[in-house]
Amino acid sequence: MEPPQTGRSRTDPAFEVPVLIARKRDGGELTEDELRALLTGYLAGEVDEAQIAALLMAGVIRGFTDAEAVALTDVLVASGDTVDLGGLAGPTVDKHSTGGVGDTTTMVVGPLLAAAGCQVAKLSGRGLGHTGGTLDKLEAIPGFRVDLSAEELRDQVERIGLAVAAATQDLVPADKRLYALRDVTATVASPALIASSVMSKKLAGGAAHVLLDVKSGDGAFMQDPAAARALAELCVRIGRARGRATGAIVSDMSQPLGDGIGNALEIAVAVETLRGERGGRFRELCLQLAAATLELTGRDPDDALRTVTRLLDDGEALASFRAFVVAQGGDPSVADDPWGVLPRAPHVVAWRPGAGTVARFGCRRLGELAATLGAGRQRQHDVLDLAVGLEVLVRSGDRIEHDQPVVRVHARTDADADRVLAQLPAAIEVSEGAFTAPPLVHARVGLTGI
Amino acid sequence: MEPPQTGRSRTDPAFEVPVLIARKRDGGELTEDELRALLTGYLAGEVDEAQIAALLMAGVIRGFTDAEAVALTDVLVASGDTVDLGGLAGPTVDKHSTGGVGDTTTMVVGPLLAAAGCQVAKLSGRGLGHTGGTLDKLEAIPGFRVDLSAEELRDQVERIGLAVAAATQDLVPADKRLYALRDVTATVASPALIASSVMSKKLAGGAAHVLLDVKSGDGAFMQDPAAARALAELCVRIGRARGRATGAIVSDMSQPLGDGIGNALEIAVAVETLRGERGGRFRELCLQLAAATLELTGRDPDDALRTVTRLLDDGEALASFRAFVVAQGGDPSVADDPWGVLPRAPHVVAWRPGAGTVARFGCRRLGELAATLGAGRQRQHDVLDLAVGLEVLVRSGDRIEHDQPVVRVHARTDADADRVLAQLPAAIEVSEGAFTAPPLVHARVGLTGI
Repeated sequence: MEPPQTGRSRTDPAFEVPVLIARKRDGGELTEDELRALLTGYLAGEVDEAQIAALLMAGVIRGFTDAEAVALTDVLVASGDTVDLGGLAGPTVDKHSTGGVGDTTTMVVGPLLAAAGCQVAKLSGRGLGHTGGTLDKLEAIPGFRVDLSAEELRDQVERIGLAVAAATQDLVPADKRLYALRDVTATVASPALIASSVMSKKLAGGAAHVLLDVKSGDGAFMQDPAAARALAELCVRIGRARGRATGAIVSDMSQPLGDGIGNALEIAVAVETLRGERGGRFRELCLQLAAATLELTGRDPDDALRTVTRLLDDGEALASFRAFVVAQGGDPSVADDPWGVLPRAPHVVAWRPGAGTVARFGCRRLGELAATLGAGRQRQHDVLDLAVGLEVLVRSGDRIEHDQPVVRVHARTDADADRVLAQLPAAIEVSEGAFTAPPLVHARVGLTGI
Repeated sequence: MEPPQTGRSRTDPAFEVPVLIARKRDGGELTEDELRALLTGYLAGEVDEAQIAALLMAGVIRGFTDAEAVALTDVLVASGDTVDLGGLAGPTVDKHSTGGVGDTTTMVVGPLLAAAGCQVAKLSGRGLGHTGGTLDKLEAIPGFRVDLSAEELRDQVERIGLAVAAATQDLVPADKRLYALRDVTATVASPALIASSVMSKKLAGGAAHVLLDVKSGDGAFMQDPAAARALAELCVRIGRARGRATGAIVSDMSQPLGDGIGNALEIAVAVETLRGERGGRFRELCLQLAAATLELTGRDPDDALRTVTRLLDDGEALASFRAFVVAQGGDPSVADDPWGVLPRAPHVVAWRPGAGTVARFGCRRLGELAATLGAGRQRQHDVLDLAVGLEVLVRSGDRIEHDQPVVRVHARTDADADRVLAQLPAAIEVSEGAFTAPPLVHARVGLTGI
């Protein structure tokens, strides 16, 4: 005979935990107090990790309500320190990407917003898997340091409008514990869990205006634009429920965003974009993200887009970037001659697949191939090779000629380059017929412009 | 950005566990090898308890297939020792109840089957919650010991056809670990998990013929006859898949089965039934269970029922019970004068609700009330008061007169008796109109008789 658990749970408060789990298992809703009791109990070692794992799985399958997502966010934020950006002169803003391949928009959007008079205090992380981390990319700039104290961060923002630092262990520590648990229990894929994780870090980061870039496509966490849009909408509702002017752009990640995939390569692409030497989808998205962020601060959308375009074209954003590099100890000549300053891989080999039309990208696969060259981590403590990676010279729908280079592999060794060259045909489809790529922007959420 | 877990799982075998959990999360099926790897990994400390909790929750919500239920059973059986009953003279049989209130059929069915020439080697457990355990009840007989070694068990069965012993820690140890985890993670309520738990212990117990008494109703684990039937069918399929002649009876637990609820009281009711002094639903179900078990050994169903009825009526089952008590050190005079031998509570008070018709029982509530008197455990290590409990003198649909006693409360103190008396009106409904009780037997599974 299996003893029924209700017999125990009725008489002992400690057994209320299974009752709460059972409610979620059966599709019910938990109150903020109940979620707080469960998660703070977990962090305090009073609720078993196994109980939280069961709760998370029930929530992943049954779904969490909006109220639960907000409550989860609150519990995460309350688990650690928060950044106080009060009293700064301009509007405090933050821009967050859910992560993609060749996705270096912070390097352009941050300077653009600083040049536009915003205060950008950005806490970032390192990369894992097929997408890079902002901190790793910045460290490709010789001398650049990301370990700013809270005071240094605030002082620098006050002075030049922009700082990017490593998030400390004390910022939303519950998110780190919870993410590690979700990672091993197959409970990552829940809109509410993803949104509360993202938004808890944004709320703790202190900015009054938050613009999210939610990626959709093969190279993103969300493959499907509708799912990405739903995640964006949930994030926006959470942010607004907690008093932040929040908006989101759902952008395409079915192909690499910028031409560089790899740390130094992505910095080079960003600098060349700031220098006005590059156009294309990367520049276009940077402008849209910066304009949308300005819109959140109350600017007219059309005026915002005109403003950021001008700031990019007339070099003010580049100047802002240079000041930012200097402030954090980096070599400012990266802004003048990136390829002369950034680390370069010894072996650069071009892939020329022959004439045709560029069709689908295996975008995630390209990120993984760059990671195998050393640009990304398989494990948390892997050491990166900041020089290596891929340069992707075409986009879906482009017509290519007989011996046109389509990808340049930047490798540490010849063997690495050959290995990746051999795998590129499986990652970029070249066909005979025409191919229409998905639009750059799938949706705008909580924004009026365009 | 949240690193996607597939990036890690591809490169590290240790991360295959989340891939397997994700498959069950998404409604897929696991192979026997995969389930074995997960559960043996868990028992060996190589798979996190949290991962198993997430897997169990996914299975509870999405369901497990028959093949998964069989595989789970196999893994559980393989985790420990099995009892070898090969070479015994008669057919080896086992009878198992999923647990109910006033449910002491083993005391009558065991002796009946032994008297019919079967070999009954039964491993039992203790009670928890609102239902009693066979071992606890037997210990109400002065001198009775249940801690038989494997050899003593087999020798006694060979000699007198019947032995009941405590299951050792080495019998299906994985079931104990898994049940403890399910209990705190709200993952008890899964047909496949319940069936694999029940059947693993039956398979490890060694009997070639297994009859299950699956209870349905308020006092049982399964409230709904259809769910109880589905569980019975799954248990039968598992048993047959592993070469055991298996059948099940789905019986009613919307009201107490026997008149006694409490350890000594239930032994007294069983003895009086063996002595031919009691009829009613308890006697009727004992006869049906014994006949169904004989049918599994190849006997004609009608002949089986005639045989067990004769063995009960002519005292052969009582003689078998007496030999069983003697063999395990108990006072054999319990078979002659149970009330003179068994412990008796000092305070016995009758509840007389007034004239009317007995309608619904709060059957689980009656079990819980008996437990609060000391007859059952709230916690695993609670010490029982074997004398106390309830005598239920009526059944649903019975007409009762003005001052007719309906329940007798057997309590250790006056205060206990008064407390329970005050709660009985909420546990037994007495109404004006007629009331038709559910049938004693809802379904027979894998059996041809009646």
